[in-house]
Amino acid sequence: MTPLWQREPVGVVGLGLIGGSLGLDLMAAGAQVRALVHRPATAARARERGLATEVSTDPAVLAGCGLVVLALPLDRLLDPHPALVTALPVGAVVTDVGSVKGPVLRCWRGVLAGAGDGPGASRFVASHPMAGTARAGVEAGEAGLFRGRPWVATPEAGTDPAALQAVRELAEALGARWLCCGAEAHDRAVALISHLPVLAGAALLQAADAGGGEIAAGAELVRALASTGFADTTRVGGGNPELGMLMARANRAALLEALDHYRQSLASLEAMVVGEEWSALQQSLARSQALRPDFL
Amino acid sequence: MTPLWQREPVGVVGLGLIGGSLGLDLMAAGAQVRALVHRPATAARARERGLATEVSTDPAVLAGCGLVVLALPLDRLLDPHPALVTALPVGAVVTDVGSVKGPVLRCWRGVLAGAGDGPGASRFVASHPMAGTARAGVEAGEAGLFRGRPWVATPEAGTDPAALQAVRELAEALGARWLCCGAEAHDRAVALISHLPVLAGAALLQAADAGGGEIAAGAELVRALASTGFADTTRVGGGNPELGMLMARANRAALLEALDHYRQSLASLEAMVVGEEWSALQQSLARSQALRPDFL
Repeated sequence: MTPLWQREPVGVVGLGLIGGSLGLDLMAAGAQVRALVHRPATAARARERGLATEVSTDPAVLAGCGLVVLALPLDRLLDPHPALVTALPVGAVVTDVGSVKGPVLRCWRGVLAGAGDGPGASRFVASHPMAGTARAGVEAGEAGLFRGRPWVATPEAGTDPAALQAVRELAEALGARWLCCGAEAHDRAVALISHLPVLAGAALLQAADAGGGEIAAGAELVRALASTGFADTTRVGGGNPELGMLMARANRAALLEALDHYRQSLASLEAMVVGEEWSALQQSLARSQALRPDFL
Repeated sequence: MTPLWQREPVGVVGLGLIGGSLGLDLMAAGAQVRALVHRPATAARARERGLATEVSTDPAVLAGCGLVVLALPLDRLLDPHPALVTALPVGAVVTDVGSVKGPVLRCWRGVLAGAGDGPGASRFVASHPMAGTARAGVEAGEAGLFRGRPWVATPEAGTDPAALQAVRELAEALGARWLCCGAEAHDRAVALISHLPVLAGAALLQAADAGGGEIAAGAELVRALASTGFADTTRVGGGNPELGMLMARANRAALLEALDHYRQSLASLEAMVVGEEWSALQQSLARSQALRPDFL
């Protein structure tokens, strides 16, 4: 059977990095894309960039869409505008792209169950295309962003299998690698590999700054000597502070658990330096070296 | 006056990443390069690659060199072979490329003072070209490695200004940015921006592994979801374990001081997550974001 995204118009709510990239790829694949944005200036620029077939600031643009992708920042996703909820078509499949899934599911289960004749909670598929870059906003969207990247869905017992299949077909049409897992497992995993590195890198920048301040002419020295290794290690830690805060807030429990593991791993390495256990330190660093290729 | 490296043959001891790259650039600049290596197989391969004018396993190859660069790993640099010390020509300028400077200075001050009619301690210039890559060994050397990279020297009160100038001319001929600072300041700075990131990244890999093991099917999940951000943050932490250990051992006090700063910065961020101080967290992450460009 023809995939839903080919049979019926696809709604995209928000045209930032994820929404804009979705629009470009879906347009290229021949889909009808109807985009809802907040500001008129964004709509004008999105039309210039050809991010969607139709772009509007009026939620009515979503009428007739068989599949709607909520490509909103986490804070707006977790506090959806009533006009957006009302505009979601009856029977439509709805998915989101938020980086934390438990709170999104809890929020939207309630929102859709309370919305009466909307899509219904069983047609909501929580998902997370893992394709971040440093860019944001209407200029950020790029063709091919999802190719080869994981696209994780976290279906629940009540999720309509046909809705899940419709989102899967969309993700795979864009070249993403489809994965399903529980929302809690997803949130704990991204705390470890995505949210913890933000804090670890952010702390590294602050430590270099504080430590450099204690060395004679050290503030300039640490800056002059920092090389590509330091730049790489701190890239996500020096990223968008609002995004980092929103992820930490939405995924607080899992992040604290990840920080606990991190503190222990770091303390174990530090104890080897304190105790001058050089052979144990080399073995521990060899373990890290052996682990890394698994994560690439 | 013509720089020393143009007037007299340059000795290079060790033809790994740094020594081999030095050889290639110096040969291209028209210098006579006489290289001393440990193993006959390395000598043969170095000749094939054209890393030096002459390559030998016999320390006598250094005879007649006006400038000798000790491009040895830190452990061999801190425990030099007596035959190497004896072979250093009278009056030659000697420099090293080790990533920690205090222990190198303490070691070589003694070695050269005790060597009688060698170069003499005043002709030793401790230096550190900051141009690491992931590669090592005789295949690693590459042309242009030093271009635009910092090359730090840590002269002492007794260092002969002419010797310092000779090393500076060599570094600048290869396109490096010349810097001078005290050995202690250097070692504390590299602890913050080079050695601490190794432990921070290594701990991240171990935390992701340990944390993933606690999630149902999490070991596979964290690996599947890890993206370019995790790869970047852990690049130096998943690097050569022997190198990491040697740096930690040679720079132990400064590394412990850096770890202390890091633990405090991390604890401060964690306290904001625990206390749900989201505005403070965003401000702290914004501080990290603002700091990072200074280090690039």
